Amino acid sequence: MNRQVIIQDLPKGELTTGHFSVQDGPVPEPAEGQVLVRTILISIDAANRAWMQGATYREAVKAGDVMHGYIIGQVVRSADPAFAEGDLVGGEGRWAEQVICKGRLLEKLPDHRPLSHLISLLGIAGKTAYHGLVNVGLPKPGETVVVSAAAGSVGIFVGQIAKALGCRAVGIAGGAEKCAWLTEELGFDAAIDYRGGNLFRELRAACPDGIDVYFDNVGGEILETVLFQMNMKGRVVCCGAVSQYNATAPTGPRNLPGLVVVKRLRMEGFIVMDFADQDAKAVADLNGWAANGQIKVVEDIVEGLENAPAALVGLLAGENRGKRMVRVAADPA
Amino acid sequence: MNRQVIIQDLPKGELTTGHFSVQDGPVPEPAEGQVLVRTILISIDAANRAWMQGATYREAVKAGDVMHGYIIGQVVRSADPAFAEGDLVGGEGRWAEQVICKGRLLEKLPDHRPLSHLISLLGIAGKTAYHGLVNVGLPKPGETVVVSAAAGSVGIFVGQIAKALGCRAVGIAGGAEKCAWLTEELGFDAAIDYRGGNLFRELRAACPDGIDVYFDNVGGEILETVLFQMNMKGRVVCCGAVSQYNATAPTGPRNLPGLVVVKRLRMEGFIVMDFADQDAKAVADLNGWAANGQIKVVEDIVEGLENAPAALVGLLAGENRGKRMVRVAADPA
Repeated sequence: MNRQVIIQDLPKGELTTGHFSVQDGPVPEPAEGQVLVRTILISIDAANRAWMQGATYREAVKAGDVMHGYIIGQVVRSADPAFAEGDLVGGEGRWAEQVICKGRLLEKLPDHRPLSHLISLLGIAGKTAYHGLVNVGLPKPGETVVVSAAAGSVGIFVGQIAKALGCRAVGIAGGAEKCAWLTEELGFDAAIDYRGGNLFRELRAACPDGIDVYFDNVGGEILETVLFQMNMKGRVVCCGAVSQYNATAPTGPRNLPGLVVVKRLRMEGFIVMDFADQDAKAVADLNGWAANGQIKVVEDIVEGLENAPAALVGLLAGENRGKRMVRVAADPA
Repeated sequence: MNRQVIIQDLPKGELTTGHFSVQDGPVPEPAEGQVLVRTILISIDAANRAWMQGATYREAVKAGDVMHGYIIGQVVRSADPAFAEGDLVGGEGRWAEQVICKGRLLEKLPDHRPLSHLISLLGIAGKTAYHGLVNVGLPKPGETVVVSAAAGSVGIFVGQIAKALGCRAVGIAGGAEKCAWLTEELGFDAAIDYRGGNLFRELRAACPDGIDVYFDNVGGEILETVLFQMNMKGRVVCCGAVSQYNATAPTGPRNLPGLVVVKRLRMEGFIVMDFADQDAKAVADLNGWAANGQIKVVEDIVEGLENAPAALVGLLAGENRGKRMVRVAADPA
């Protein structure tokens, strides 16, 4: 049998575990050009929730689907000549123990251990942080970089990369404990608890020279507050809008586009695939910083496929520290 | 005596002529480094209203001030060795018959007739349209360019420059007459009356291939509507937010920053001075297009200093076609 997580209903507002059900299904057989993959790890991403809002940069997910997600696994049977049994692969998959993937949407992965690093440091999270900060934000040494959802999968790398590049790194996160952890464990220069009610004032104190680059994972009110403190010619890296995914009535920052004009800001959206041609440089830099201790790799691994719905719901509530993923099976020997 | 327009009170919401008074004052004497200028033309700009909201890219104007504005005039007396009596000059001035200007903030103007062209085609309006579209929007031939406040001082040039560059030009303006004028007189491919209540649908019909560059003069709901129809990697040139200047409770586009991420948009603010180093190329291109008939220069000249308040109030209500200015004195012989 093949255990899988089905979308029962699409959420209208807040996502709950009740929108999913765990069921057993048959083990599918790969058709021409397809590959059957045994899932080892599933990446849990805020973007998973955005897919339920409708078509984004990819097709929407629908009620009745086995939930979509990025997976790492091992080829069980292949009907694509590019793959053989035992290959380690990563790509768009499903929340299931065994998944049919189109060969052309899979990539072969190096046998890098632990495999989880291929999702965190060297995967979606690390590359998103790297390409967004380095290639969209264009930070210069000495500049101030602010990142929201700073304790999240991407945020922890954004702040640490900013430090490695010689910038001042300031994180915004939910809760005093997370904030203490960002400064004490990960080397952020400052971290602000947005739930504390004094974001504007604390941001001003943490960024005495203003903000040059804002890596925005959340949108909404936090974006609005940060915009007021951007420096002239500042850059807003638009990576996500997690504050809006669960919202039934989205709100736009009231100072947009006014402040973009006044301060000559550049706001630019991107997704990690846009910079695939620069992945090799990203991986080399990230590996180097991890090797010399400038980047600590923090992972938040939830055990068991059946816990994937709760893992996503919790991620949207901000309970994770570092890259969240679900382990479906042990790394192969 | 020296007739001048004073700001009585700063507006809280909608600006009216009652916020100004016209008074006679003494003719001031230039101190060291200053120049006394006899005003010929005053540029009336939506930005004048923004200055009353507080500090923007320049200091705020205050109650009791003689109203600030860009002027063109002739030097009467100079205490700056760089200027002599009779020089034609332009720069930051006041709404008054005679104005004290700092010499270092003035520029000498060529004796280009009519002088009004130095405010419209070759001045703030034309250069703002040129630099914003060409240097921020980076349009490619065949792309679709949409501009709001299309019948306004900047908008008329944006659409005509877009056509000269081989793009499809679509204007958004208030009222069916203005829209007919844009297509019939100025060569826009299409124009949409935003007051008609069908902006989304009419925009879709006018832009069957989507929108590549949006030159935004208005912000607010029109920006929100346009964003939904932007193409991947589209560019939003943020030039102004006139819909918000009179608003007591500004609203942000609800699809920001979400759509910026999904569509990998770039939104970028600028003001005309940012590209001063490329003014010579702008002026050459604009003169060339005007000479060969690709650009028609449309001006809206209000006679008499005492009518400047009504000219600004009317501009904010959208009553002008083309560059609005106030004539205080005739061009010199």
